[in-house]
Amino acid sequence: AQINATPQIKKFEPRSAEWGKYYPRQFDSYMQTKKSDDIKDVLKDNPAQIVMWAGYGFSKDYNAPRGHYYILEDNINTLRTGAPVDKKTGPMPTACWTCKSPDVPRLIDKMGENDFYTGKWARHGGEIVNPVGCADCHDNETMKLTVTRDYIKRALDAEGSMPFADATHQDMRTLVCVQCHSEYYFKKTKWTDDAGQEQTAAVVTFPWNNGFSAEDIEQYYDERNFVDWTHKVSKTPMLKAQHPGFETFITGAHGKAGLACADCHMPYVREGGVKYSNHNVGSPLKDIANTCLNCHSGTEAEFKKTVEDKLARKDELHLKATQVIARAHLEAGKAIELGATDEEMKAAQTDIRHAQWRWDYSIAAHGSFFHAPEETLRVLGSAIEKGQEARIKLRTLLAKYGAADFEAPDFSTKEQAQAVIGLPFDKLVDEKNEFLKGLKQEWFQEGLEKGIYDPKSREGMVLKVSYPTN
Amino acid sequence: AQINATPQIKKFEPRSAEWGKYYPRQFDSYMQTKKSDDIKDVLKDNPAQIVMWAGYGFSKDYNAPRGHYYILEDNINTLRTGAPVDKKTGPMPTACWTCKSPDVPRLIDKMGENDFYTGKWARHGGEIVNPVGCADCHDNETMKLTVTRDYIKRALDAEGSMPFADATHQDMRTLVCVQCHSEYYFKKTKWTDDAGQEQTAAVVTFPWNNGFSAEDIEQYYDERNFVDWTHKVSKTPMLKAQHPGFETFITGAHGKAGLACADCHMPYVREGGVKYSNHNVGSPLKDIANTCLNCHSGTEAEFKKTVEDKLARKDELHLKATQVIARAHLEAGKAIELGATDEEMKAAQTDIRHAQWRWDYSIAAHGSFFHAPEETLRVLGSAIEKGQEARIKLRTLLAKYGAADFEAPDFSTKEQAQAVIGLPFDKLVDEKNEFLKGLKQEWFQEGLEKGIYDPKSREGMVLKVSYPTN
Ligand code: HEC
Ligand code: HEC
Ligand code: HEC
Ligand code: HEC
Ligand code: HEC
Ligand code: HEC
Ligand code: HEC
Ligand code: HEC
Ligand code: HEC
Ligand code: HEC
Ligand SMILES: [Ca+2]
Ligand SMILES: [Ca+2]
Repeated sequence: AQINATPQIKKFEPRSAEWGKYYPRQFDSYMQTKKSDDIKDVLKDNPAQIVMWAGYGFSKDYNAPRGHYYILEDNINTLRTGAPVDKKTGPMPTACWTCKSPDVPRLIDKMGENDFYTGKWARHGGEIVNPVGCADCHDNETMKLTVTRDYIKRALDAEGSMPFADATHQDMRTLVCVQCHSEYYFKKTKWTDDAGQEQTAAVVTFPWNNGFSAEDIEQYYDERNFVDWTHKVSKTPMLKAQHPGFETFITGAHGKAGLACADCHMPYVREGGVKYSNHNVGSPLKDIANTCLNCHSGTEAEFKKTVEDKLARKDELHLKATQVIARAHLEAGKAIELGATDEEMKAAQTDIRHAQWRWDYSIAAHGSFFHAPEETLRVLGSAIEKGQEARIKLRTLLAKYGAADFEAPDFSTKEQAQAVIGLPFDKLVDEKNEFLKGLKQEWFQEGLEKGIYDPKSREGMVLKVSYPTN
Repeated sequence: AQINATPQIKKFEPRSAEWGKYYPRQFDSYMQTKKSDDIKDVLKDNPAQIVMWAGYGFSKDYNAPRGHYYILEDNINTLRTGAPVDKKTGPMPTACWTCKSPDVPRLIDKMGENDFYTGKWARHGGEIVNPVGCADCHDNETMKLTVTRDYIKRALDAEGSMPFADATHQDMRTLVCVQCHSEYYFKKTKWTDDAGQEQTAAVVTFPWNNGFSAEDIEQYYDERNFVDWTHKVSKTPMLKAQHPGFETFITGAHGKAGLACADCHMPYVREGGVKYSNHNVGSPLKDIANTCLNCHSGTEAEFKKTVEDKLARKDELHLKATQVIARAHLEAGKAIELGATDEEMKAAQTDIRHAQWRWDYSIAAHGSFFHAPEETLRVLGSAIEKGQEARIKLRTLLAKYGAADFEAPDFSTKEQAQAVIGLPFDKLVDEKNEFLKGLKQEWFQEGLEKGIYDPKSREGMVLKVSYPTN
């Protein structure tokens, strides 16, 4: 370690180990995120979600988050990113790298935003080879916290209540996380490349112009007729909510009290005479002494119980909402099959769109049950109401087409749900396995040759996914 | 004031002014509850509730609570207690006095519990003439906090997790309130009077054997096939939840932290060199300095905003649930009208019973949105889910009977809702007005003659109700 040397860190240095030479405690604790390696298959836990996402990537594969160490690995391994065979194939756009690596700000600086966000995900394969790291949150010269994705600045300014220029140091202890832990969509953006060719970029955008609430963002999308995908069964123009961690956090007691993410997820710890921020970002319940107990009194058991109670409340309404909405899709599908017209379907589909958006908004950020227990439950309650409203409308319609008694097929296991929506799971898995042994390996080789990839950063990594590997 | 004399207070002295001779600060602050005199007509605010309570007293008249000063007055004036013309007429049992007056423990001591709880409400008219007072919560000799209704002891012991014998002083600062601010039902109890005659008492009982949650209590009632009333339109065997203030409070952050009701509703205040408990029980937001600020930091505006946000979340799901459940009743009524059999109706009626129970449990204690925001929202969410489930079943049934398109009639004003359920409002009001000028006046005259009523306690009282008076 060069702990006493003047740090010499290149701008956009993507390899955290290079920074770690001067900041070994931060680096070592950062590397501890490796220990959070469990794969929790969220689709298996609640297969109704497979039905809810029919026709969309999330129906193929979706796990609970694990440590930051795995951020890139999981992005590459998920069935959602598919099995490209070259730079131009595969289902996803380049934007899918955005929140996975410090190579992203480096590339954006090199190529420009529009070019970065143009093309298929596989295009940047050989350039994005390091997991989230120091360069995502720190300035290389001053070590000051910094945001490295411009879309967050644009979004805060568009929302208006907390413009980026006013952000305090305590705000930055949240905003570095919020670069990634927020709801986003890919905004189609036309631009002209150097060759004079018109191109379309898919630019990561935070939909905050109307505010941060489920309703505000729903309105934002509705105003733009924005559609993430058309549901395979119910033909509904759907929205996907991705982890609105910030949007929900600010409605809770801790957000209102001015806490930052780092207060609980990166507590100050003491090692001998030195105090530093624990970069092992993970569950605060692993270190209650340095988190909760800084502000509260109580026993570890009490804190854990409180958190569990909140989780159980959320889980109850979460599960109810998924049952309701999955059924609504299948009932809508049946009505269409029997001849219901677009006109007739419209009202129920709008309810389904809004119900599923609200459900997803409440739970897609896995910490919302704790960060924002009331907002989570309120929005889940409204999702249930709208989902059931769709089903009532659909009953009337099913009756019209002679199927008032229709019962949706069983989707209580992962396999059953996949069958219900006709998902070619085995094929996806086979192709992915090919990719894992082929292109994936080439990418890291490329990175090594370019001098941007540190093979030590993946030493001892074990392949863990929720589908069969070979 | 005889503030320096040795207190000489009779056992069961119902007149608070007698106690006040020795404890003027407590008495004066107690009398301040007179200032909270606004009548807020909850049925007008949300007429769907009239439909929900069709065939039951609450559809006639239901207001938000006001100051303890009005406790007896409001009980006597509500259309729910009807217009008895003698000791044996009127819709309500004697149990309706239970939580309104310190004359109750006095009478129970005199008559015995079973006899007290037998007969019509009007039977005790001339005996119950003082509003909740010192004798409800204090021992006349020691001034110690005491509970004066035995059913609370029986219920705590039956539940088991906090037996009455273990209650600490801090617990008593809650339990004196919990005597009244709890869900109850009237348990039919056979007994034999001195004349050897078999009688049936309707004894106030807390349904806590299985626990305090909405589900625990629902199960308690289901196990006993208990029915508060049969819904006039949907013919559902219904439950009524009354203000489960304690049951919900203990699930919230303050309950878990060991606070007592008195910590916020009866804060210690300082008057010169003397510190005493403010007996002006009301909204803690009137005295944030002596309540919230004892434990939290923040501005008055912040506390008010926080409480308002919680109220708005509750109101949203509350309103949704009432729309859903009122419609379910009317749709069920239509199905029955068209010929649906009891057998066919059963499943939807069970959903309606549970949906309305849960809705009522969440909101009937007017403070639950603050005391227990998460539990309130969770249970409201589950009420919505079940209410909509009933409606989906009813759609299938309506389709069978050729009315898949049925739309419930408009119930968006108090008058419309009354018409929908055929409530003879004008008749009830006319009869009540007769009663107010007749029997009610006789009762206080009787009390005066018996030496148990202090006319000063009602001096300057203005008649305020939510129906026309003359
Ligand atoms: C560059 C994007 C990015 C940044 C910056 C970022 N995160 Fe993450 N975070 C992710 C992704 C992606 C995952 C999921 C990783 C996986 O499952 O492979 C994740 C996972 C997590 C987890 C789950 C860890 C576990 O072990 O289960 C927590 C907690 C978390 N982040 C909190 C934070 C906090 C707090 C900050 C800021 C101090 C932050 N993140 C900054 C993208 C980011
Ligand atoms: C704006 C930032 C952002 C963008 C853009 C983004 N992600 Fe993520 N991603 C995250 C965060 C934050 C998490 C952890 C969320 C959680 O579950 O709490 C995550 C988690 C993941 C995970 C691990 C958990 C899982 O879902 O199995 C995968 C895989 C993943 N993302 C893939 C993708 C793909 C594919 C795309 C493009 C369609 C994408 N990400 C776009 C921020 C982002
Ligand atoms: C007051 C403490 C606190 C603050 C502040 C806080 N969190 Fe959390 N967070 C928690 C707790 C507790 C959990 C639940 C951990 C568990 O279930 O083990 C959690 C869970 C998470 C998770 C899900 C982890 C998983 O593996 O499921 C993510 C992601 C997360 N938080 C990110 C953030 C972000 C981003 C912020 C700031 C916007 C933030 N947190 C602020 C305490 C906090
Ligand atoms: C997800 C965002 C994030 C990443 C990635 C990250 N840091 Fe930090 N870092 C923070 C935050 C937040 C703080 C606390 C800043 C404060 O309160 O002053 C911090 C503080 C520090 C500090 C100041 C001393 C201290 O411990 O409080 C150093 C040095 C540091 N980080 C080095 C690193 C190094 C080296 C890496 C890579 C191994 C890294 N950081 C990765 C967010 C991050
Ligand atoms: C930096 C201070 C701080 C830390 C660290 C902290 N809290 Fe808090 N917590 C607060 C404040 C402030 C409130 C708001 C209530 C108040 O003003 O007392 C609060 C409220 C709560 C509440 C009640 C609000 C709710 O959402 O139910 C719970 C429960 C809670 N905290 C649990 C935790 C747990 C568990 C942790 C550790 C993971 C934690 N807190 C970490 C300061 C903190
Ligand atoms: C003997 C029964 C009884 C006891 C004991 C009792 N209450 Fe009440 N309380 C009531 C009734 C009945 C009302 C409604 C009065 C009305 O609307 O006329 C009420 C009203 C209230 C209100 C509303 C006041 C307003 O101005 O809106 C509050 C707050 C309250 N009680 C809190 C408490 C607390 C705290 C305690 C214990 C310290 C307590 N009560 C003890 C029966 C009781
Ligand atoms: C176990 C105690 C208890 C019993 C028994 C009881 N009440 Fe109450 N009553 C209360 C409490 C507590 C409140 C205040 C509740 C609130 O709204 O927060 C209240 C409020 C009231 C009010 C004022 C608000 C309104 O509803 O308009 C009236 C009138 C009333 N009760 C009548 C009755 C009648 C009639 C009965 C018998 C059917 C009855 N009470 C039985 C405890 C009781
Ligand atoms: C931490 C403070 C706190 C504690 C402890 C507390 N309350 Fe409250 N209570 C409040 C607040 C704040 C409100 C909302 C007042 C408002 O809306 O103006 C409220 C509202 C009420 C109301 C409704 C008053 C109305 O007019 O609508 C009743 C009744 C009540 N509380 C009774 C109780 C009882 C009984 C207990 C104990 C089981 C209790 N409270 C414990 C703070 C508290
Ligand atoms: C609704 C319940 C209730 C009623 C009614 C009530 N009290 Fe209290 N009283 C309490 C509570 C709770 C305390 C606080 C006890 C403690 O913390 O020691 C208290 C405290 C007292 C004390 C002790 C000194 C103090 O102020 O803390 C006196 C004296 C007293 N009350 C007198 C009266 C008198 C006189 C009346 C009638 C005008 C009365 N109380 C009515 C609940 C009640
Ligand atoms: C006797 C102490 C005390 C009093 C008085 C008190 N609180 Fe609290 N409050 C707490 C404790 C303890 C917590 C739990 C969180 C914690 O441990 O910091 C809490 C939590 C909260 C929370 C977060 C939990 C939630 O339910 O959202 C809010 C909001 C809150 N209090 C508001 C108030 C308001 C408003 C008042 C005054 C009406 C008040 N408090 C009075 C001690 C108190
Ligand atoms: Ca989205
Ligand atoms: Ca009841």
